[in-house]
Amino acid sequence: MNLLLELLLFLVTLLYSYLEAFVKLFVPARRKSLSGELVLITGAGHGVGRATALEFAKRQSRLVLWDINKHGVEETAAECQKLGATVQTFVVDCSKREEIYSTADKTTRAFLPVMMNNNYGHIVTVASAAGQFVTPFMVAYCSSKFAAVGFHKALTEELSALGKDGIKTTCLCPVFINTGFVKNPSTRLGKILEVEEVVEALMEGIVTNQKMVFVPPQLNIALLSEMVFPERALNLLKKMTLPKFDAVIGQRSTQ
Amino acid sequence: MNLLLELLLFLVTLLYSYLEAFVKLFVPARRKSLSGELVLITGAGHGVGRATALEFAKRQSRLVLWDINKHGVEETAAECQKLGATVQTFVVDCSKREEIYSTADKTTRAFLPVMMNNNYGHIVTVASAAGQFVTPFMVAYCSSKFAAVGFHKALTEELSALGKDGIKTTCLCPVFINTGFVKNPSTRLGKILEVEEVVEALMEGIVTNQKMVFVPPQLNIALLSEMVFPERALNLLKKMTLPKFDAVIGQRSTQ
Repeated sequence: MNLLLELLLFLVTLLYSYLEAFVKLFVPARRKSLSGELVLITGAGHGVGRATALEFAKRQSRLVLWDINKHGVEETAAECQKLGATVQTFVVDCSKREEIYSTADKTTRAFLPVMMNNNYGHIVTVASAAGQFVTPFMVAYCSSKFAAVGFHKALTEELSALGKDGIKTTCLCPVFINTGFVKNPSTRLGKILEVEEVVEALMEGIVTNQKMVFVPPQLNIALLSEMVFPERALNLLKKMTLPKFDAVIGQRSTQ
Repeated sequence: MNLLLELLLFLVTLLYSYLEAFVKLFVPARRKSLSGELVLITGAGHGVGRATALEFAKRQSRLVLWDINKHGVEETAAECQKLGATVQTFVVDCSKREEIYSTADKTTRAFLPVMMNNNYGHIVTVASAAGQFVTPFMVAYCSSKFAAVGFHKALTEELSALGKDGIKTTCLCPVFINTGFVKNPSTRLGKILEVEEVVEALMEGIVTNQKMVFVPPQLNIALLSEMVFPERALNLLKKMTLPKFDAVIGQRSTQ
């Protein structure tokens, strides 16, 4: 195909896509059922992981729960079972390389080949707004969350290139959540999130196959403003809206 | 300050910044001298690292060169010394955690406190276009390069928050380079880069304190288009321009 034809094809597709996006604003999205689905949740003993497990339990999914905290994950499992879900729990310490490998190995055998063969499934990457925007004094955290966003995007591209369009992906990018991970957070850009509203946005993202779930959704606009505002204006904007918090505290110390 | 005043201040700053950016298009950027500066280069035994070392040597910097490959780094050192530079070499295997820690420890003691005390220096993070755009079949590579971009951005924010405006940062994001890292690369978005043009862009970025160096520079526009084009149009665009290559081959196998 020659370049002019390709350009024409692209422009027509671009116009069609904008029109499609506009129409979709007024059409309610289709929601998929999660009943009977096999769901693995990491970090299920606390915070967002636990609340997500409960939401899947309410929808009658079959749950596999991971956490470093035996007490926490068993508590979550008990609550899920009360809601009628079948639950298996594993204690996994993600700071120990061998434990991740051995448990991931079991999981890989159990999950990935079946997903690929059936061209069916959904992979959720829990990142953070810090995977798209940086904050001072959290260099390592931001780097790891940027990596999580990159992982999600590259995985999505690869599944698409392999024609596995039945395997969906979702990346969760919330701002600060009130789970005890940071102490006394405060930000001018909206309030600190409660776990429930993050999980509500995540579940909606999963059942409607959204690729990127920003909480709050206005983060999308902030991302665009980073691209088009000059540095001097951005610096002022940051000074005006920078989130503040006392300390980052580990999961363990809150237990 | 009340919100309305802050908004006004922001709008005035925004207009001023756009005007400033426009004027700067016609004013040649100030270039800093690199003569006598102490410069640490990792991966200096090959490709971009070696070519960068030679450029600093031409500018009479004092060099500290790291590489996994003893033969390679000594070859680079000999070439740099011919250009009149003083050179120290270290063999470091970045796949061995302990070696990074012990050599980084030496480096940290030698470099970072002095940089912070003097509020003077420049930190270059070598990332990749794959740290901003994803490519299928390179999930781990993309994730690590996204992390490198996140590291650069978070470090930049932190230095700014600490008032260390004398320590500059630059992040290098080139597309495929002809260094033997990928086999038979080809892309519709411009040609495969030669090492020399990447290093030329990097050196220009360093002496003019550019924060992000895209090679080719049009990558900036591609990044913006990712934000404003709908998914269907982007997918078509990717199909039309996707880079293709035979295999990713390690550094070792090319030696």
